[in-house]
Amino acid sequence: MLSQLITGNRCFLSTRTQFIRSLTKLPDSQKIRSQFVFQRKGSIKAINELYKENAENIEVSINGWIDNKPKHIGKNISFGVLRDPNGDTIQLVDSHSLLKGISRETVVQVKGTISSKKNSNLYSNRLEYELKLNELSVLNLSNDKPSQLQDFKERGNYPPQYRYLQLRNPKYSDFLKKRYEISRIVRDILNKENFLEIETPILFKPTPEGAREFLVPTRVKKAKKGIPTFYSLTQSPQQYKQLLMASGFSNYFQVARCFRDEDLRADRQPEFTQIDLEMSFASGNDVMQLLEQLVPKTWDELSITGELFTLDHSGKKLIPVHENRNEIYRLTYQQAMSLYGIDKPDLRAPDLKIVDLSEFRATANRNKKFPTFEVIVLRNAFDSIENYKENWHFLDNAQNYTYRTPLVVPITNDEAKTTWFEKFQSIAAFENPKMISKFLNLKQGDIICGSTREPNGSIFENPTPLGTLRKLVLQSEIGKRLYRETDHDVASWVIDFPLFSPLTNEPAPNDDFPIYQHDRLMSTHHPFTMVNLSDYNKLNKNPTKCRGQHYDLVINGIELGGGSTRVHDPELQNFIFESILKIENSEELFGHLLNAFAMGTPPHAGFAIGFDRMCAMLCGTESIRDVLAFPKSITGTDLVVKSPSLVDEDVLKLYNIEYKKN
Amino acid sequence: MLSQLITGNRCFLSTRTQFIRSLTKLPDSQKIRSQFVFQRKGSIKAINELYKENAENIEVSINGWIDNKPKHIGKNISFGVLRDPNGDTIQLVDSHSLLKGISRETVVQVKGTISSKKNSNLYSNRLEYELKLNELSVLNLSNDKPSQLQDFKERGNYPPQYRYLQLRNPKYSDFLKKRYEISRIVRDILNKENFLEIETPILFKPTPEGAREFLVPTRVKKAKKGIPTFYSLTQSPQQYKQLLMASGFSNYFQVARCFRDEDLRADRQPEFTQIDLEMSFASGNDVMQLLEQLVPKTWDELSITGELFTLDHSGKKLIPVHENRNEIYRLTYQQAMSLYGIDKPDLRAPDLKIVDLSEFRATANRNKKFPTFEVIVLRNAFDSIENYKENWHFLDNAQNYTYRTPLVVPITNDEAKTTWFEKFQSIAAFENPKMISKFLNLKQGDIICGSTREPNGSIFENPTPLGTLRKLVLQSEIGKRLYRETDHDVASWVIDFPLFSPLTNEPAPNDDFPIYQHDRLMSTHHPFTMVNLSDYNKLNKNPTKCRGQHYDLVINGIELGGGSTRVHDPELQNFIFESILKIENSEELFGHLLNAFAMGTPPHAGFAIGFDRMCAMLCGTESIRDVLAFPKSITGTDLVVKSPSLVDEDVLKLYNIEYKKN
Repeated sequence: MLSQLITGNRCFLSTRTQFIRSLTKLPDSQKIRSQFVFQRKGSIKAINELYKENAENIEVSINGWIDNKPKHIGKNISFGVLRDPNGDTIQLVDSHSLLKGISRETVVQVKGTISSKKNSNLYSNRLEYELKLNELSVLNLSNDKPSQLQDFKERGNYPPQYRYLQLRNPKYSDFLKKRYEISRIVRDILNKENFLEIETPILFKPTPEGAREFLVPTRVKKAKKGIPTFYSLTQSPQQYKQLLMASGFSNYFQVARCFRDEDLRADRQPEFTQIDLEMSFASGNDVMQLLEQLVPKTWDELSITGELFTLDHSGKKLIPVHENRNEIYRLTYQQAMSLYGIDKPDLRAPDLKIVDLSEFRATANRNKKFPTFEVIVLRNAFDSIENYKENWHFLDNAQNYTYRTPLVVPITNDEAKTTWFEKFQSIAAFENPKMISKFLNLKQGDIICGSTREPNGSIFENPTPLGTLRKLVLQSEIGKRLYRETDHDVASWVIDFPLFSPLTNEPAPNDDFPIYQHDRLMSTHHPFTMVNLSDYNKLNKNPTKCRGQHYDLVINGIELGGGSTRVHDPELQNFIFESILKIENSEELFGHLLNAFAMGTPPHAGFAIGFDRMCAMLCGTESIRDVLAFPKSITGTDLVVKSPSLVDEDVLKLYNIEYKKN
Repeated sequence: MLSQLITGNRCFLSTRTQFIRSLTKLPDSQKIRSQFVFQRKGSIKAINELYKENAENIEVSINGWIDNKPKHIGKNISFGVLRDPNGDTIQLVDSHSLLKGISRETVVQVKGTISSKKNSNLYSNRLEYELKLNELSVLNLSNDKPSQLQDFKERGNYPPQYRYLQLRNPKYSDFLKKRYEISRIVRDILNKENFLEIETPILFKPTPEGAREFLVPTRVKKAKKGIPTFYSLTQSPQQYKQLLMASGFSNYFQVARCFRDEDLRADRQPEFTQIDLEMSFASGNDVMQLLEQLVPKTWDELSITGELFTLDHSGKKLIPVHENRNEIYRLTYQQAMSLYGIDKPDLRAPDLKIVDLSEFRATANRNKKFPTFEVIVLRNAFDSIENYKENWHFLDNAQNYTYRTPLVVPITNDEAKTTWFEKFQSIAAFENPKMISKFLNLKQGDIICGSTREPNGSIFENPTPLGTLRKLVLQSEIGKRLYRETDHDVASWVIDFPLFSPLTNEPAPNDDFPIYQHDRLMSTHHPFTMVNLSDYNKLNKNPTKCRGQHYDLVINGIELGGGSTRVHDPELQNFIFESILKIENSEELFGHLLNAFAMGTPPHAGFAIGFDRMCAMLCGTESIRDVLAFPKSITGTDLVVKSPSLVDEDVLKLYNIEYKKN
């Protein structure tokens, strides 16, 4: 009877039953009865049904909330507004004082006669009907709090601890309805493509430090020692889905809850949802082609910006994906870094490109490891020095840059067109400035920004200073206006990432350049990614020169998701663990994968879409919080239920742990 | 580039890079190339396509696994069997020694000519085609382990750590395919009923001891004190879904992952899935009617036992639910306990009932609190005393009973028909045994079993001794044969549960009766369940006499799920917390609900289906492990990946916890 299935929380017992508290009073039974006995669903109308049926002079019953404080007009008549569960509203006309003392957000069931509206726009021009009240029963009387929060309501944004009030506003509940639509379309497409949704465990096995995963203490002790053991919460079903490939499934997907314990940013949550998929006897190409169906279809159906765009084969022209033989443009990591200075470029401004001046033998002269000097020119960016200062001050604001700040030179007069380079001499040497000036064809009103980066083929600083600058430009109002070519969402692939990256030291305040530990490599994405076959032989001597078979799908400068062809050879996987990543206990950590790979695991490749991000994009909102029912704050707290919270140390002892003693 | 979305586990760094390990060797690049370069999906055939197309003498390519060790017949010819990703097999005929040295479970891509099979049943009579091998490329060579495990394969059951081998057997992968089908049908029905799937948080707020929930340490400290704070993992979305009702959503559902840290039984897992739903402006009746659509429809579509049955209105006849106006028979808790001795009776044997002998003034004489004497008669149970002993010894085996063991009397001869009651005199007094004998109409070969229980209206011992006995009978082979009336699945509702139950002491070895702490009440299901209005006034003085608006859906003696009408009145909810359950910090624990209830939460009711259990039933398997991709063992360990595991104490310090020092 005490079932695992159904109980939220059960058996609440006073810890000290001796302690007699002042008993709260049992509410009046008539009041309770009236709140629990009401007309059944069937006989209830939704307001939008009235419109459909052009109802007139009929009696109906409607459930809903009192949307605003009723207004008393004269002695015997008052007006109110009822909001039904769909968020539609109707005016109530009350000549029986039924609305008396009814506060905002009170839940009622009303009965009355429908008639066309007389006095329009009293509250809202969405009203076209009014309902003459005959009966009103209060199903839940609200306290005054919602009235006190009226200002927030009008601003359309309640404090987060009142999320349940916020969600009564159709604008916000519609985000969750759309999220559901998106999940249905995605499931539908994958089902048609013969994918199978399989649930994989969330309680997983801890991995080494650095992985930033949540831990879950268990009652299971390691024999003898009495040392506690832990589950971790999966950061993604990555290893389980590879085991599913080993299990013989061809096409797996899962709308999967994932968890990550890391410093949160505006667009991150400790728990998040991804559309996780994997295909066997398949390569990354097969996966990319699937995504080239899935994502544009979803955009066609549900995006408010219309169909999804990409670059054509020339890499110059923006066109709808479906006019591009459903192919999404593929940028290599090297192209992305040298043209846009970042691995997730915003291609709504494809012409706003960085120019490498190496071919003109302009070279950086400060740091040997960052020899490439490059510039980006903002054309027709200002008309007067005042308006330059006003609009573009952020370009060389050091606060916006982790390392060195780019040099920014506004072309304010004809002379500057040819002497601009002198300003850059502190960081770069120019053999033939004239030729460069000619090539750049600067005009008064342009802004030229310059900085340095690593040489082609080994760019690990990401974004580069000019990559950050370009991003700032396209996030600024003026930058959007001047340089964005489209309001459509623009997608591209980014491929050929470096398979491994050197560990980077935490930037110190005065570091102008990142400092790498070249003897300590990490997987750029994860250690299960296959190397490009053409780079295979570099694995031994030059692992940082190896490109991986990883692919990111980028839309509007945001990474929608990524995936890769996986390693399925146990020796190669073990070589990567031990010889490159120098994991000492790889057998203990990944023995299950190595064993599966050694017993007939087919070649496989997969992908994961950030579902929260995808929903936010399709809903046209900046924050993923808007598409979550109960998002956690920037500090990881749920302000509605107030989690996380304290736990009695006696409970911890069940798990063989205790507070850390200082 | 290091994205939250896509990484399983990233940045694996040696903790001591000084330590130089013996490098593993990079595998030969030709071998690797051959494993990663293969024919594309499009040009590959599935074996079942050959049947559809009646292929003959055409050349095809097929991906799959070598199903058995190839047999070498003579010098130049050998036979093998290929199993494709659908689990279909085809015979391979090899005259080019391509199968040489290929071990079981090796992944291959073969090319060859299809022809009708000649020598049938060499391996399996499913084979109708054979394929003359022209090319074979090894995509992953298996080691010898699968061959060593051949015996297990033939027994059809690999050791759990080889779950990925087990799942290559269609019998087992089909369970997961069916699970997916079930989820699709359920989602489809709920979508048609205008339900909205909404994801709620899994990282929740810890509740008091007893709740048996997993804890998740966080880096967030309580200001000053430096005391660590914790999330809990939701045992069900109960509170969040009630907050969704407060948020104005009418019809919510979620296929929700839930977690419970408790002593596991064969049919329980630390993480499980439930189909969770809630309706606002609705009562339990509306929810039950929805389930009376949802569950029978799902059975119609997918059950291997055919359509779902229930009892007709007389409570006597078994009929299909759809012939019963889609109504599932409603048993009250009192009826279930007095007729079947348990709150989840197996109604496939509706006539196997317990008889209360009170009306014949037969009364128990041992324990005042357990005054009711009752019997159950097993008709025509044996033909000789030997075969009675052989088949029915379990009936009075004390090990099967928590408390007192029923008295069991076989009617071995005519005399016993009238003297049987003497055997019961140690526990019960009989005023008029003759009349009872007449009434019971015992015959030779019957078995009469008797025991005691609490009086009607306050039965908390569940199951009663005879309830346990009846269950044992219906689980035994002979009991199924003699007393089960149908092989169909039989459903019933159980309603009118006691809202609260007294805490029961842990049974001591010699306790013949449960011992209750009547001053310590717990919610029978959970504290959010509404009381029956007719019992409302008993809340003050007689809470244990109150029935709750809770309903369980029981199929074949198993609880498929349960739900209730919820409390939505803040005063009443608080009265239950404080005055009845004596929760001292109810504000701290449940303030979020009380606040939401005080700001216009409509009446609501809901339900949760145990999805794993439902899938097991529909797949016709006893164990829910069969319908989980990677189930955890009875001790909560995942034997494939070997979780849970140890965590370095330095990592714990990040969370301000440490090992418990003894």
